[in-house]
Amino acid sequence: MIELANKLVIILASGGLDSSTVAGLAKENGARIIGLSFDYGQRHKKELSAAQEIANHLHFEELKIIKLDLSQWGGSSLTDYTQNIPTHGVDKNIIPNTYVPGRNTIFISIALSYAEAINADIIGLGVNALDYSGYPDCRPDYIYQFQKLANLSNKRGRENKPIQLWAPLLSLNKEEIMEMAYENKVPIEMTWSCYAGGLEPCKICDSCRIRERAFTNWAKRYKK
Amino acid sequence: MIELANKLVIILASGGLDSSTVAGLAKENGARIIGLSFDYGQRHKKELSAAQEIANHLHFEELKIIKLDLSQWGGSSLTDYTQNIPTHGVDKNIIPNTYVPGRNTIFISIALSYAEAINADIIGLGVNALDYSGYPDCRPDYIYQFQKLANLSNKRGRENKPIQLWAPLLSLNKEEIMEMAYENKVPIEMTWSCYAGGLEPCKICDSCRIRERAFTNWAKRYKK
Repeated sequence: MIELANKLVIILASGGLDSSTVAGLAKENGARIIGLSFDYGQRHKKELSAAQEIANHLHFEELKIIKLDLSQWGGSSLTDYTQNIPTHGVDKNIIPNTYVPGRNTIFISIALSYAEAINADIIGLGVNALDYSGYPDCRPDYIYQFQKLANLSNKRGRENKPIQLWAPLLSLNKEEIMEMAYENKVPIEMTWSCYAGGLEPCKICDSCRIRERAFTNWAKRYKK
Repeated sequence: MIELANKLVIILASGGLDSSTVAGLAKENGARIIGLSFDYGQRHKKELSAAQEIANHLHFEELKIIKLDLSQWGGSSLTDYTQNIPTHGVDKNIIPNTYVPGRNTIFISIALSYAEAINADIIGLGVNALDYSGYPDCRPDYIYQFQKLANLSNKRGRENKPIQLWAPLLSLNKEEIMEMAYENKVPIEMTWSCYAGGLEPCKICDSCRIRERAFTNWAKRYKK
C-alpha cells in the first residue's frame, strides 16, 4: 500500500460506505484528511449530512462542500427528478439511469485542483469495480488513465512529484469493503447509501440492494 | 478537419481570441454552437461579457455560464487577488502564477458532462501550445490523454460514438490564429485577452504581450 503516515490526503467523501472506508483506512494509517463533498443538485442532501457526521467522527481536518449544479442539464435520475430511480435489481450489462454524466471526472478534476493549491499528495477515491452499478467511470482503466492525465495536467506532474490517485477498493467486492470498514473503525451505521432520501433506506434501489447483499455475505464470510 | 456541418459543438468560450476563433471556424463550417463559460472567481467579469457579445454576434444557440468558485483555494494570481499578475514578459521555461490549478481539466470535464447530457458530438477548445504562457494543460499530450480518458469515462465511449475533443489551434502560432479569426469573421475587436480587468487592456501582462506581438506579426506576414 502507499505510504500514508503524515500525508495530507483529500478524500472525495460521499457519505457512503466506500468513501468512508477509504477515509478510515487513511486515518488508521496516520494520514491527515481533508474531505471534499459536492452539493451538485442531487436528489437529497442526506449524503451531505452523513459525510459531515463521518468527517467529525474520523476527525477530518476539514470537510469542504463544493456547490456545482449538475441538475442544470440532468441526464440522470439522480439529477433529473422527473426520472424514476430503478428498483428492479442490478443488471451489470447496462448502465443504469443513476449514472450521472461526467460526475466522477468532474469531482476528481476539482480534487486535483484543490490538491495542487494546498499541496496535498494523495486523492483518495472510493470507486470499486466489482460490486458496482455498471458505471463506466468506476473501472480500473478509467482510474489508470486519469492518473496519466493528472501527471500531464499540472505543476506537480512536471516537477516529478505527481498527485497520486489512490483507489484502494478498486478490486474488492462489497463484503471485503465492509470488512475493511469494520477493521478500520469506520462508523458504518453513519454511512448513507440509498439513492432515495427518505427517513430510512428504501431497500429496493440498486445501492440499497448492493449494500444489503454485502451485509449478508459479509456476516456469512467473516462469521460476525 | 473534422466534419462540422450540422454538428452540435460545445465551445469553452472564454471571451478571448482563441476560443472565439474556434467558434468562428465552427460557425463558418455549418456547426450549431453552444458556448460554455465559467464564473469561477476570476479577477474580473469582463471576459464573461465579452463571451456574451461574441455569442450574440456569432449566433450561438446558447451561452451557458457555470458558477464554480475556484477562488476558494486560489493558487493563482487570477483567483487569489493578493498575488500580483506578472508584467515582466513571458518566459516559457517557467509556469507563471496566472496558471490556475486544474482549470482546464475541470472545464473540459464539465463540458463532457454537458455534452453527454444533451448529446453533443464535439467539444471545441481554444488551447494552443506555441504562443502560450507555459501552462501544462495546454499541450498536445494533455489533450491527447484527455481524449483517451473521455472515451473511457462515459456512455458515448462505450457505445463507440465518442465525444470528440477538438483543438484546431493546437499547433498554430498566434499570428496564424489571428489570420484564422480574420478569415472566419470573428469579431476580433470584441474579444478580451487582458488578465487585468481595466477599461482598456493593460498592455503589460503576458496575455496582452502575446496578443500585441501577434497583431504585429500578423500584419507583417499577411500584409494587412
